[in-house]
Amino acid sequence: MVRIILSGCNGKMGRVISNIVSNFSDLSIVAGVDKSNQQNTYPVFSNIADCTIDADVIVDFSRPDALDSLLKYAKEKNVGIILCTTGFSDEQILKIKEASKEIPVFRSANMSIGINVVNKVLKSISALLYKDFDIEIIEKHHNQKVDSPSGTALLLANTIKESLPEETIFVHGREGISKRSPKEIGIHAVRGGSIVGDHEVIFAGQGEVIEVNHYAISREVFAVGALKACQFMYGKGKGLYSMDDVVK
Amino acid sequence: MVRIILSGCNGKMGRVISNIVSNFSDLSIVAGVDKSNQQNTYPVFSNIADCTIDADVIVDFSRPDALDSLLKYAKEKNVGIILCTTGFSDEQILKIKEASKEIPVFRSANMSIGINVVNKVLKSISALLYKDFDIEIIEKHHNQKVDSPSGTALLLANTIKESLPEETIFVHGREGISKRSPKEIGIHAVRGGSIVGDHEVIFAGQGEVIEVNHYAISREVFAVGALKACQFMYGKGKGLYSMDDVVK
Amino acid sequence: MVRIILSGCNGKMGRVISNIVSNFSDLSIVAGVDKSNQQNTYPVFSNIADCTIDADVIVDFSRPDALDSLLKYAKEKNVGIILCTTGFSDEQILKIKEASKEIPVFRSANMSIGINVVNKVLKSISALLYKDFDIEIIEKHHNQKVDSPSGTALLLANTIKESLPEETIFVHGREGISKRSPKEIGIHAVRGGSIVGDHEVIFAGQGEVIEVNHYAISREVFAVGALKACQFMYGKGKGLYSMDDVVK
Amino acid sequence: MVRIILSGCNGKMGRVISNIVSNFSDLSIVAGVDKSNQQNTYPVFSNIADCTIDADVIVDFSRPDALDSLLKYAKEKNVGIILCTTGFSDEQILKIKEASKEIPVFRSANMSIGINVVNKVLKSISALLYKDFDIEIIEKHHNQKVDSPSGTALLLANTIKESLPEETIFVHGREGISKRSPKEIGIHAVRGGSIVGDHEVIFAGQGEVIEVNHYAISREVFAVGALKACQFMYGKGKGLYSMDDVVK
Repeated sequence: MVRIILSGCNGKMGRVISNIVSNFSDLSIVAGVDKSNQQNTYPVFSNIADCTIDADVIVDFSRPDALDSLLKYAKEKNVGIILCTTGFSDEQILKIKEASKEIPVFRSANMSIGINVVNKVLKSISALLYKDFDIEIIEKHHNQKVDSPSGTALLLANTIKESLPEETIFVHGREGISKRSPKEIGIHAVRGGSIVGDHEVIFAGQGEVIEVNHYAISREVFAVGALKACQFMYGKGKGLYSMDDVVK
Repeated sequence: MVRIILSGCNGKMGRVISNIVSNFSDLSIVAGVDKSNQQNTYPVFSNIADCTIDADVIVDFSRPDALDSLLKYAKEKNVGIILCTTGFSDEQILKIKEASKEIPVFRSANMSIGINVVNKVLKSISALLYKDFDIEIIEKHHNQKVDSPSGTALLLANTIKESLPEETIFVHGREGISKRSPKEIGIHAVRGGSIVGDHEVIFAGQGEVIEVNHYAISREVFAVGALKACQFMYGKGKGLYSMDDVVK
Repeated sequence: MVRIILSGCNGKMGRVISNIVSNFSDLSIVAGVDKSNQQNTYPVFSNIADCTIDADVIVDFSRPDALDSLLKYAKEKNVGIILCTTGFSDEQILKIKEASKEIPVFRSANMSIGINVVNKVLKSISALLYKDFDIEIIEKHHNQKVDSPSGTALLLANTIKESLPEETIFVHGREGISKRSPKEIGIHAVRGGSIVGDHEVIFAGQGEVIEVNHYAISREVFAVGALKACQFMYGKGKGLYSMDDVVK
Repeated sequence: MVRIILSGCNGKMGRVISNIVSNFSDLSIVAGVDKSNQQNTYPVFSNIADCTIDADVIVDFSRPDALDSLLKYAKEKNVGIILCTTGFSDEQILKIKEASKEIPVFRSANMSIGINVVNKVLKSISALLYKDFDIEIIEKHHNQKVDSPSGTALLLANTIKESLPEETIFVHGREGISKRSPKEIGIHAVRGGSIVGDHEVIFAGQGEVIEVNHYAISREVFAVGALKACQFMYGKGKGLYSMDDVVK
């Protein structure tokens, strides 16, 4: 049984994880950490420093500014840590790398298994196809999203870019008179309603089209990914891990 | 039997029409007109003025500058005319309207039955949905297309715009930090490979999405549409007709 | 302000409605009814007969066997009733019709606005297209769904069937050597993961394809539909109403 | 310059290849073979035994019964052969394998680059995903196709089946009351209009869906694939090759 300390347990993602952890017979949340220390089926501490319960791994869905206290605790107790927060500063990312020389650390830009499988597929086929196929990405999100394109679309586009031997240019929409350059990767940001998150990668060739698509149905996917990461991290030694390792 | 004079019979679309007309048991091409007067199973004239064969309708897939001679001939012989060329000047469009006071004239921006059905559907549902649904259009075409967005995407977008009681703004791609305004209709132009022509109209609401999509598989659709227009025009009196009337 | 009594307020759909009603400034839940009479921001009664609070409309998301008590109460108080439960017996449907001669009654097979708009579109285009287009339906649902095809797919298929002047046959999958008959409407039931509910209606013609698609993202759509029905029912006289009237 | 003998040069696919070969600057058709020995820009022989022109590779799009004469000629002249015909008997497949011990032989069930890339992707991700994702395949073809499901859908389904450590069952449509077994791979054959050939492979998981899709726009894809195979085969030694090697 992998024993988990859930940091940010009373937040939106924390609650999703608490709800679905019982689907994983080999995982158990033994303690939570949250400023609002509302109790749960497990004891909840307002600060991780106060946590007196033994665990195998910490899962963090709180905020970047909790990083220092989390790393300090993980090193002292010698437990692995899975960082699911985004928005770390460059300085913080350096601290994360440093910590991974002492303890097992896991960090990914997108915790869904599916997106990481799509990313892996793109790595293997982009270089194979780019000479004869034009590559375009369509992403769709709800109408409250403020950034375009989505971070995940950029993750996928950069994976493609890095797989290709030639220079590429990202194009964010088209209007007017101008022919597509083979160097272009079009990235199209559709916004509407309550769409959770769709990503379609299109390889359009002479007489045929290949698509590799990902559709998020609910936030649950990120919880499932985090719990898969717990299973993966059990028994791992020091080092820096990511979803790339889980979907290998 | 509807007897057809095919203007532009040796061009790309003229040849497609010649190939599929035999699928329509009530239609027959009795003469062709083309500068390159290569003969066919029917006699071909280099100028319509030289055509001595009786017909019920003229179908034109040649070039805008043939308009004067075509209208002159149609008026003299009192036959209907179906104009499938695009790119007419404002002055020419006026001439077409004038001619329709004497003879039956048919003109449409897109000759495919399917696009005109989609257009009709948009007319009936846009006003119904716009308050609770965000509207976005994705169009996909081959990598040699120079204009973005496609004329057909603009046709559909303008149909929606005219159906709504409130002002709308067309947005051609998104990049950076900014939330979608409810006034926006996003129009996204994907370019790649040899895609013939896809148009997807997305209505994204709270918890649900409706799509009305059209996929052109081959140029044949425009030929089929023109031949349906021939059937429609048979026996019609003077007036200006369009695909809207065919798909009513 | 439309005052609502919510029957089944502590069930899955009841809770969704309670959560989103505040998005509708002209609607207010004044009382709830539920066997488990756990209190809410509004008073909750275990039986509607005990409810002493004035209202304009009853929304029912409980179970078919609550019908008698609900109709009795609605008639006594002369308030409209919106029945969102499915699975009524023929006898119960008769009772519903009878009640509509005294009070305003609303009932629909699917409470989402989107599906009812799709249904309306199918009515208007099926007869127009069927001669030249083959019609097929694909529906996708989660892997726990026991009935195939979905009730909504059948609703749409029957709408098409009734719109056509000729006989049609429903075909539920294909295997072996046999050509498609023009009479067929293929209905394909895809099952997998946690898909909420997708319905795609395909019109495939010579050289072109039209699709009318609906994607449910969450149960919220049924709650939104029910609340739209409340707005629609306000001030209506006796009679039997459905989503068809709302999306007219 | 790779010199090609095109067997079946006056058939449907032969003509497509003749039309597009000029797009490949390193390829040239030096002779054709066809029962109807209508001449082309290259000399055409009614039987390959009569062909006196030196070449590097034979591409065959004729019929299975031409196999013996083709293999005989290829062995005598010691040139590679690319077999694009389908429908070989078991005995013929044995002959092909035997021949590959003497000369370079290429054979694939589907000559499109895209389908073979999709097939390769499926090999790499199926085993990774099957525990948490349900797998379903939708294929769409024109209404004249007599076999269901398509040979390519079966190719993809078998690739998945062979990648999984557990038993799977192919299910061809669903109707009635029964829950999906995790062992099932649903294969759905949509038939309509003039659809050239769509294949969608769906991995549906908890809260997310991955799709790997292929859309054929025209027969050209098979010609392009055959010409890519010519480039690949240039200079190869004896052995049995397939599209798997080209898209490696």
